[in-house]
Amino acid sequence: MTQIDLNSDLGESYGPWRMGQDSDMLDIVTSANVACGLHAGDPAEMARTVAMCLEKNVGIGAHPGFDDLHGFGRREIIGTSDTKLRALVIYQIGALQAIARAQGAALRHVKMHGALSNMAARDARMSGIFVRAVLDCAPELTVMAVAATEIQSAAEAAGARLVCEVFADRTYTDNGTLTPRSVAGAVIHDPVVAAENVLRMIDDQAVTSTSGVKVPVRPETVCVHGDNPAAVKLAAGVRARLEKAGVTVAAF
Amino acid sequence: MTQIDLNSDLGESYGPWRMGQDSDMLDIVTSANVACGLHAGDPAEMARTVAMCLEKNVGIGAHPGFDDLHGFGRREIIGTSDTKLRALVIYQIGALQAIARAQGAALRHVKMHGALSNMAARDARMSGIFVRAVLDCAPELTVMAVAATEIQSAAEAAGARLVCEVFADRTYTDNGTLTPRSVAGAVIHDPVVAAENVLRMIDDQAVTSTSGVKVPVRPETVCVHGDNPAAVKLAAGVRARLEKAGVTVAAF
Amino acid sequence: MTQIDLNSDLGESYGPWRMGQDSDMLDIVTSANVACGLHAGDPAEMARTVAMCLEKNVGIGAHPGFDDLHGFGRREIIGTSDTKLRALVIYQIGALQAIARAQGAALRHVKMHGALSNMAARDARMSGIFVRAVLDCAPELTVMAVAATEIQSAAEAAGARLVCEVFADRTYTDNGTLTPRSVAGAVIHDPVVAAENVLRMIDDQAVTSTSGVKVPVRPETVCVHGDNPAAVKLAAGVRARLEKAGVTVAAF
Amino acid sequence: MTQIDLNSDLGESYGPWRMGQDSDMLDIVTSANVACGLHAGDPAEMARTVAMCLEKNVGIGAHPGFDDLHGFGRREIIGTSDTKLRALVIYQIGALQAIARAQGAALRHVKMHGALSNMAARDARMSGIFVRAVLDCAPELTVMAVAATEIQSAAEAAGARLVCEVFADRTYTDNGTLTPRSVAGAVIHDPVVAAENVLRMIDDQAVTSTSGVKVPVRPETVCVHGDNPAAVKLAAGVRARLEKAGVTVAAF
Repeated sequence: MTQIDLNSDLGESYGPWRMGQDSDMLDIVTSANVACGLHAGDPAEMARTVAMCLEKNVGIGAHPGFDDLHGFGRREIIGTSDTKLRALVIYQIGALQAIARAQGAALRHVKMHGALSNMAARDARMSGIFVRAVLDCAPELTVMAVAATEIQSAAEAAGARLVCEVFADRTYTDNGTLTPRSVAGAVIHDPVVAAENVLRMIDDQAVTSTSGVKVPVRPETVCVHGDNPAAVKLAAGVRARLEKAGVTVAAF
Repeated sequence: MTQIDLNSDLGESYGPWRMGQDSDMLDIVTSANVACGLHAGDPAEMARTVAMCLEKNVGIGAHPGFDDLHGFGRREIIGTSDTKLRALVIYQIGALQAIARAQGAALRHVKMHGALSNMAARDARMSGIFVRAVLDCAPELTVMAVAATEIQSAAEAAGARLVCEVFADRTYTDNGTLTPRSVAGAVIHDPVVAAENVLRMIDDQAVTSTSGVKVPVRPETVCVHGDNPAAVKLAAGVRARLEKAGVTVAAF
Repeated sequence: MTQIDLNSDLGESYGPWRMGQDSDMLDIVTSANVACGLHAGDPAEMARTVAMCLEKNVGIGAHPGFDDLHGFGRREIIGTSDTKLRALVIYQIGALQAIARAQGAALRHVKMHGALSNMAARDARMSGIFVRAVLDCAPELTVMAVAATEIQSAAEAAGARLVCEVFADRTYTDNGTLTPRSVAGAVIHDPVVAAENVLRMIDDQAVTSTSGVKVPVRPETVCVHGDNPAAVKLAAGVRARLEKAGVTVAAF
Repeated sequence: MTQIDLNSDLGESYGPWRMGQDSDMLDIVTSANVACGLHAGDPAEMARTVAMCLEKNVGIGAHPGFDDLHGFGRREIIGTSDTKLRALVIYQIGALQAIARAQGAALRHVKMHGALSNMAARDARMSGIFVRAVLDCAPELTVMAVAATEIQSAAEAAGARLVCEVFADRTYTDNGTLTPRSVAGAVIHDPVVAAENVLRMIDDQAVTSTSGVKVPVRPETVCVHGDNPAAVKLAAGVRARLEKAGVTVAAF
C-alpha cells in the first residue's frame, strides 16, 4: 500500500501582518514547515502554529531561511560565510525546538526555505554545511530534501534521516529540476492534473520532464502551497484525488 | 568555605559590529550571559561565544532581551502581550540551546537582559511568565534573579532552580533596589571598594543601602561588566580581592 | 460653509505582507498618513501609496513611528534620547519626501503614529522635540495634532502650521482624551452615531465626554480607520452622512 | 593645477555599536559617504556625522546600500525588483537629505555602497535605475561612479552630474576592474605606493593594470578607508604625498 506525505510552508505571519490560510491548510497537509523568524514568522506566531499542528496532528518541522524579511527569504544572498550559514540554520532550528518543547511537542523534520533551499539544491558545499548543522544540533530530525538535488546527496552522504520531496503543481526539466516560474507552463493550476502527476511519480518512482525524460526519484513528500484560496483548493483537490486512487496520505 | 560566582553579559557583537572585551572577561568570570540575537548578538557570534566559554570552562547562560537593536534592549517597551513575552523568552533560550548543543555543550542558566529584567524585577506578572517559560522549555536551567525582586519571588514560588545576583559596582537604596544611574554615587569605580562591598554582602548575607539599611539577600552571583578596558580592570580587581580574602570564585 | 478633512493611516504593508484596504480608503479620505518604514511600510510600499494618492488626489502626509515592527509602533518605548527621537522623526519625513518628490509630488502634513503620538500627546518635551524636528527639516508641512493635547500646544507655541484632529469612532473622557479601548463603549461601530458625533463636534467646536462635559476643540480633521472591511464601511458611512448634512469633505 | 577629491565611507556605527575612526578620517577626506540606516548607520548617527562634516567642511554624500545589516551591505542580493531597487535608493537619499537640511546643510553627492555598487558596476540595467532614481529625487546631486563601469556609463547617458572614482589601495585588472580581494597583491598597504599610484593615474588619465595595460579613466575622486588605525594612517599618508606632489586635495 502506497503512502505519501503532504507538506506546506506555514506560520508565515509576522508581527501584526497576517499571511496564509494556515488553519485550512492544516486540515489538508500532514507536515508543516514552520517559519522561524528570520524571513517570516515570529516567536508568538511560531507558538500559535505549533499549537495548531498539535491540535490537528500534523508533523512539525523547522523551515530555516535567510535573514531577509523584505525579500521573504526568496532573494539569493551571495557571500554568507560557512560559519554564518551553519549558525543561521542551528539558531532557527533551536528556536522552534524550544517553542515546541514548551508545548510538550517535538520537531520531526527540517526543510530549507526559498532562496536558501534553491542555492543549496545546486551547491554541494552549502548542502553539506546544512546537513552537518542539522546532525550536530538535532540528529533526530528528518531532512526534507528536494529530490535529485545536492541536498539529497548531502543527506545521504552524511547518513541523515531523509525524505525526498516532489512538487505537485510544478513541471520538471530534463535534469530533474523545476521549470523556472518564468517559463510558460511551469506552474500547474488544475488539481486533477497535479494529482495525476503525483500518482505517475509514485508509479514510476521518477519525475517526467516536459519533454518526456524520466528522472528517477523517490516521491515521499509532496509540497503544496497555501498562499491564497485557489492554492488551498488545489491542495485539497490533490489530497482528495490521491486518496481516491488508494494512496494513504500520512506523515512519513 | 565561601564560594561565589561572577557573571557578565557577553556575546554582544552584532553582524559586522564588535562590542566588549569578551576574551578578557572570560578569564575573569565563571558564568557568561550570552545575548541571543534580538537586542544584541547574532547566530555566528553566539556560536563564537559558546566556543570561548567551552575553551575557558565558563558556565553558559541565555540572556534574552527585548527585540530592540536600536535601544540595545535597554528601553522599556510597554504593551507586549503575555503570549508574546512568553514566546520571546523561549525563542531566545532555544536558539542558544541548539547552538550550544551543536558544540557538545549545554546551557546552565538564564538571566533576563536590560529593560526586560528591570521591568520584571518590579512586576510579579512578568516574572511569573518568564519563570513559567523557562520551566516549560528548559527546566534544567538555573534562573539568575536580581536578589530581592519579583524575579526571585517568582522563581521561588514556581520551584525553579535559582541563584541570587548582587552587583559589585553599584550602590543600593533602602528597599534593596539599585540606586538609579542618574544619582551621584550610584556607580562604584574603585575595584577595592567594589570587592569590599561584595565581601560585606557575603558576611552579612545582606546588601547595605547608602543610608545604612541592611536588606537580607543571598549573594550567590556577582554581576560585573566588560564594556570597556576600565570595566575589565574593575572586574579583575574584584576577583583578585575576593580570592585574596579566601572566597572561592567558581560557577554555582 | 463648513469644511472638514478625513484622514487615515495607510501604506502599512511591509515586504511580502499586505495590510489595509488602501485603494478603497483613498476613495473616502482626503488626507493619507503614510507609514515610513520603521513601524510599517517599506520604500516600495511608500512609493505605491504616494502614486495612489496622486491618482486619487488625496493629500500626502508622513506618519513617523517608533522603530518597532513587531509591535507595529503601538508599544510605548521608554528611554529614547531627545537626540534619537529628533533624528527618528526627521529620517522618516525625509524618506517619504524624496519618494514623493521622485513622483512630482510633495508632502502636505505630518502626523505621529501610535505609541509615539500617545506619548507625545501627554508629554510637552516630546511634543516640543517633534515640532522642532518638523520645522527644521520641513517647515512647509502642517502638523496634524490630536486636539487638546501637548502636541497641539507645542505646534501653537512654535508657530507651526497646524490642524486639530478628532476621532469619529471613539468616545471621550472629561479631560478631552480618548476613552481607553479597554473600557466598554470606547469604540463606536455605527456609522450614523459616528457621523452625528462629528457633526456635533463641528457645531459645538468641542468634544462631548461620555459624562456630558464639553471640551473646546477645533475639529479640522477626522481620523477614520481602514484596517478591515467593517472599518472601511464605517468610514464611508461617516463621509456620506457628513456630506448629506452639508459639510464639505476636503483636504485642509 | 591638478585637483582631486578624497572620499571615505563614514557614519557606519549602528545603535549601540561603534565603527570607524570618523573624526580622524574627516580631517583627511574632502567627501564623506554617509550610511543611511539600511546596511549601517541609524538616524542619530547620520545626524552626528552630518554635524561633523559641517564642522570640518567636508562634502556630504548619501551612501545607499542593500537592506542587509547582518551582511553590512556586502552580500550580493539577487532578485530585488526594479521597483524596489528604485525605492530603496530614493528612501535612503531622502532620509539623509532631511537630516542634513535640519542642520542647514545640503547633500552634494551620492555613491552606492558595497554589493549594490559592485552589482551595478557590471549591470547596465541596475545602474540605469540608480541614476534615474537620483535624477528624479535629487537632480542636484553628483553621482560618484566607479570609473570605467556601467555606473559611469549610465550617469553619462542620463546627463547626471558625475565624478569618477579610483582606488588608491587596490590594484586593477586589464579591463579596468579591481583585482578581487581574494587574489594576492590585490590590496596595497604602503601609503607611498598608494599615493604614487594615484599620481600616475592623474598623469596618465588612466589606471594601469597589474600586467601593464592602461585603461583610460578620469581620476576625480579617490576612495580611502578608515576601518582601522592602519587604514587611517594609509589615508593620511596618501593625502600628504599627493599634496607634496603639488596636487590640491579638495572637494570636487
